[in-house]
Amino acid sequence: MPSPQTALSEIARERQSQLTKPAGSLGFLEDLAIWFAARLPAPTPTRLKPMLAIFAADHGVAAEGVSAFPAEVTAQMVINFMNGGAAINVLARQHQISLSVIDVGVATDYPVPAQNSARLYRTPIAKGTANLRRQAAMSEAECSKAWQVGHATAFEAAKAGKTLLIGGEMGIANTTAAAALICALTGYQPADIVGHGTGIDTQAKELKIQVVQDALQRAQAAGAHSAQDWLREVGGLEIAALAGFYAGAAEAGVPALLDGFITTAAALVAVKDNPAVAEWLLASHVSQEQGHRLALSALGLTPMLDLGLRLGEASGAALCVPLLQSALALHGEMATFAEAGVAAAKMV
Amino acid sequence: MPSPQTALSEIARERQSQLTKPAGSLGFLEDLAIWFAARLPAPTPTRLKPMLAIFAADHGVAAEGVSAFPAEVTAQMVINFMNGGAAINVLARQHQISLSVIDVGVATDYPVPAQNSARLYRTPIAKGTANLRRQAAMSEAECSKAWQVGHATAFEAAKAGKTLLIGGEMGIANTTAAAALICALTGYQPADIVGHGTGIDTQAKELKIQVVQDALQRAQAAGAHSAQDWLREVGGLEIAALAGFYAGAAEAGVPALLDGFITTAAALVAVKDNPAVAEWLLASHVSQEQGHRLALSALGLTPMLDLGLRLGEASGAALCVPLLQSALALHGEMATFAEAGVAAAKMV
Repeated sequence: MPSPQTALSEIARERQSQLTKPAGSLGFLEDLAIWFAARLPAPTPTRLKPMLAIFAADHGVAAEGVSAFPAEVTAQMVINFMNGGAAINVLARQHQISLSVIDVGVATDYPVPAQNSARLYRTPIAKGTANLRRQAAMSEAECSKAWQVGHATAFEAAKAGKTLLIGGEMGIANTTAAAALICALTGYQPADIVGHGTGIDTQAKELKIQVVQDALQRAQAAGAHSAQDWLREVGGLEIAALAGFYAGAAEAGVPALLDGFITTAAALVAVKDNPAVAEWLLASHVSQEQGHRLALSALGLTPMLDLGLRLGEASGAALCVPLLQSALALHGEMATFAEAGVAAAKMV
Repeated sequence: MPSPQTALSEIARERQSQLTKPAGSLGFLEDLAIWFAARLPAPTPTRLKPMLAIFAADHGVAAEGVSAFPAEVTAQMVINFMNGGAAINVLARQHQISLSVIDVGVATDYPVPAQNSARLYRTPIAKGTANLRRQAAMSEAECSKAWQVGHATAFEAAKAGKTLLIGGEMGIANTTAAAALICALTGYQPADIVGHGTGIDTQAKELKIQVVQDALQRAQAAGAHSAQDWLREVGGLEIAALAGFYAGAAEAGVPALLDGFITTAAALVAVKDNPAVAEWLLASHVSQEQGHRLALSALGLTPMLDLGLRLGEASGAALCVPLLQSALALHGEMATFAEAGVAAAKMV
């Protein structure tokens, strides 16, 4: 796996100190420019070329009543992505990001839609996962196949010259799987991590906590130990694909931008599996979903935005793209004190 | 002064509940769409047409040693704006915002620059303010003239069809004036509000606190009472112009987006002068400058970004423009559940 070129970060840091602004006054945007310099890699990186892939799959645990929406919505939203009516379509259009949707396990049949607003890749591995409260969500083969789909997606994007890989997800009930994974990999309790998802009430949330507790106990009893074990036992097909996507991004040496709660759970799996993956990950926002902040902290990541989002689809990540472009544009295009004939600080 | 059309906000709120996403899952972006609906005014407002004006002026109080930069930097940065090398030039280019720089009192002579990257309006009212520690910063006539320049700028932008007015500032030592104004208008103490500005050390910050205390005592003794009194006594020419700009935006019925510490001080003046101005103000970011968060709270405003910025020049506001455009695009372009054939939540 390639390592970030820290010498380039040092050159970028030095350049930041010479730009016509008080030292440090661009705050986190300076940190971002320095971070990207080591990874793109260039002392003054050019504009990012982002790609965005939404992995979609269903979850057997939806049968437990843990989501506010019926399971058919996963397939309906895939069609909505194709027709351009979803939130992520609007944001992808605004920021000129090409959008791929990758069906790794949607349970409901749906017609082949027109591909006007996104490219659809139908590579379903199963008709959703098994109910993780009662049995392993996936077989070893299914989990590995899903991981490989994500991994290949990242590698293809890297080969096509993309310099920022953004993963998103669609899957009714997937906050239950993500919460279980985060508990398993961080040691937090279900009550700390389980949230209201797409909008369940307090009673349904109590049930969801119980479902996660049962799943963790079951998987523990079944001998789950490694990150891959937990992924197979309590994860999801789209979560496995995302974990493979982040691992692939790191192996290809391309930065990856996380979205919300589910993508962060997937990133935790990839990082527990190989800690070097963390070097290539960037947080976008902290969502309203309880536990997201704790999961980001476990990864050592600081989010850029805190807007009370809890939508998924990579919507929070897409909102950060212009901020990242700004960080690089400021770094590359601002005049230095010497170039502009501006006096530097008389005290520091 | 026009009032926001709250009936349009209700229509926008109802539309938000029908879009293909969990209710409330776009968080603050939903609030923004609802806020703009009442003010643009339209149930589904079109893309914002932003204008950005930087008001520049010098401060006699710079002689007290309250800034990390020499006073000539105000004029040097005006030239940097014209040449396109400042942070705000980069952001204005990225987001296609036309940039005006309005000299309302730069003290140092500077050549008429080429106007490639911004339009310069030279309407200096004085060669900077008097030293606010020792005497009133401005005469009544100067303060009123500066206010009128800002007011006219807002009105002209409104007449030209702009739908988002963004004010910025450049003026070495203006965090001292802004801190004094915020203390005078909110009741906070100088130690709560005075910050490190462009990067002074702890010793210089102690001096700055003393300067603000002296200024407040002097102005109090001189009988300062109204917001206009305090503006004249401890404000600045660019701050007076910004206060007039916000008042003008509200009178013209056009939303105005604040930037950082100095613009927020100016907004406080405008709102204390006429509380109805607050209805037209939107916060962009909370800066690293101590006291900005308190000043925003005093205005009842919630910032979108918290990135540790402390640059001014409207840079924090410009960074928010794509987020605002996203909020309106999502509101206007997403499909409803009915349009997309997506099942609504089975529980709420």
